[in-house]
Amino acid sequence: MSLNVVIIGLGSMGLGMARSVIRAHIPTWGFDLSTDRMSILQAEGGRKDSLEKALATADVTISVVVNSQQTEEILFGQNGAAGIMRPGSVFMSCATVAPSFARDMEKKLHSNSIYYLDTPISGGSVRADSGQLSIMASGHAAGFQIAQPALDAMAETVFRLGDEAGAGSALKVINQMLAGIHIAATAEAMTFGIAQGIEPQTIVDVISKCAGTSWMFENRAPHIVSGDYTPHSAVSIFVKDLGIVSDIAQTLKISAPITTTALQQFMAASAAGFGHEDDAAVAKIYARDAGLTLPGDTQ
Amino acid sequence: MSLNVVIIGLGSMGLGMARSVIRAHIPTWGFDLSTDRMSILQAEGGRKDSLEKALATADVTISVVVNSQQTEEILFGQNGAAGIMRPGSVFMSCATVAPSFARDMEKKLHSNSIYYLDTPISGGSVRADSGQLSIMASGHAAGFQIAQPALDAMAETVFRLGDEAGAGSALKVINQMLAGIHIAATAEAMTFGIAQGIEPQTIVDVISKCAGTSWMFENRAPHIVSGDYTPHSAVSIFVKDLGIVSDIAQTLKISAPITTTALQQFMAASAAGFGHEDDAAVAKIYARDAGLTLPGDTQ
Repeated sequence: MSLNVVIIGLGSMGLGMARSVIRAHIPTWGFDLSTDRMSILQAEGGRKDSLEKALATADVTISVVVNSQQTEEILFGQNGAAGIMRPGSVFMSCATVAPSFARDMEKKLHSNSIYYLDTPISGGSVRADSGQLSIMASGHAAGFQIAQPALDAMAETVFRLGDEAGAGSALKVINQMLAGIHIAATAEAMTFGIAQGIEPQTIVDVISKCAGTSWMFENRAPHIVSGDYTPHSAVSIFVKDLGIVSDIAQTLKISAPITTTALQQFMAASAAGFGHEDDAAVAKIYARDAGLTLPGDTQ
Repeated sequence: MSLNVVIIGLGSMGLGMARSVIRAHIPTWGFDLSTDRMSILQAEGGRKDSLEKALATADVTISVVVNSQQTEEILFGQNGAAGIMRPGSVFMSCATVAPSFARDMEKKLHSNSIYYLDTPISGGSVRADSGQLSIMASGHAAGFQIAQPALDAMAETVFRLGDEAGAGSALKVINQMLAGIHIAATAEAMTFGIAQGIEPQTIVDVISKCAGTSWMFENRAPHIVSGDYTPHSAVSIFVKDLGIVSDIAQTLKISAPITTTALQQFMAASAAGFGHEDDAAVAKIYARDAGLTLPGDTQ
């Protein structure tokens, strides 16, 4: 069976995912606001057509954008995909969004006879490039059947979380909640140690082998040690994602005090001008508040 | 060379450490306020003598008690070890204490010509039993040379962090800071997911494989899933240890807002009567505040 795949959003994740699909010999069209990004993909085997034409022939359209606003714009904005895609085709949404938004989109696309798959992604750009993402997935089984070859190309692990949109996003939001807390906690622990005169590299060496470690500690603490805040994932992402957690918690009337505290630190980092730096730059807020110098500081 | 080892404190950690030393064919004396604990060790090969006699012939005395107050009492209380131990012998302190306390003890014992090794432990009772602890160690090299056979028997990894007391405790406190935050974050994330109707086991299955995971999430979230709060490490331990972090932060005039928030949750759990339950029981505070029922709840 031939499968046509359209990928909208060729950022650090989307470009890698498009490459993985192309490697599986699946006809792939990539679109982005940046024509440079589109040219990169076309040079690597991506097909070339207008967005309208590509959407009209797509079996699977994969949206790899930043948030719910962009997702909704792609589907229901001017010349929105919902009005162009064929009945029976599949729309996979990969942005981190509230579960209620995913359920809403599923319902709206259902009336166009388009399958909405709630498929947020995890793993980072390196794993996107190598086709080894984790995907937290829920939605109609028939939609998954159509999209399976694309999922196989992009993901090492697909968590099937039920037949309705919402569950995928719920798990992704829980993951982002812990990830964001752990990054802020990493910054808090590193600055706490540095303030006591401990070598930053020693903290990484010891804690990585002890019960205080986390995936994010092992991944982000070295950024603080090297003073390299080249964005892999930016501070602004966690302002958004912990904001989603906070909104859901408020709607459910439950408290999430650690999330809220971590969110404040990311917001302070954003307000201080570090929004587009690597999320480990939340350490700069701790350093500023403590009058500390971090590795790589030019003060 | 024959080495005599005294271990004071035969709780879940101390008893396992004593067993590991005995397994290495090192003469070992164990003491505890509970004569039952002493009998258990003696039945497994521990030597029997008065504490005074054992301390007077010990090459290495290992203190495996809960906090700085107990450590100081052992050394300088009535019939304190500092007045009994031989010059040139070694005192290893394993409690989690502030680095300033460790430096203070080192200084005081130095005037008795006793080596103080700042050697807090990590790994839990199972690893204590199997001789696979991690030890965050600092102190005089001559002291380490004497204690080496005992360290080899008890530890898989000894992090040598310098020739002065304080560094070992500093790293242990950083580890406890992250461990405590991660346990409270685990409780926050699990209850956040349960409140949205997600199966607790599904949260564990998915998050354990994603970037939001932590050592503590993988270890403690299953306690919440099974509703089993049999204490491996108790809520009260983190009231104490995050309190140490908070005190140090205040002394250094640096902020540690996530630590402080996590500490509040552990204090609430303690105030609600869960102080002696497993530290994952901090989830009960989240559940109470959200009006949620946790697995195993008899409500």
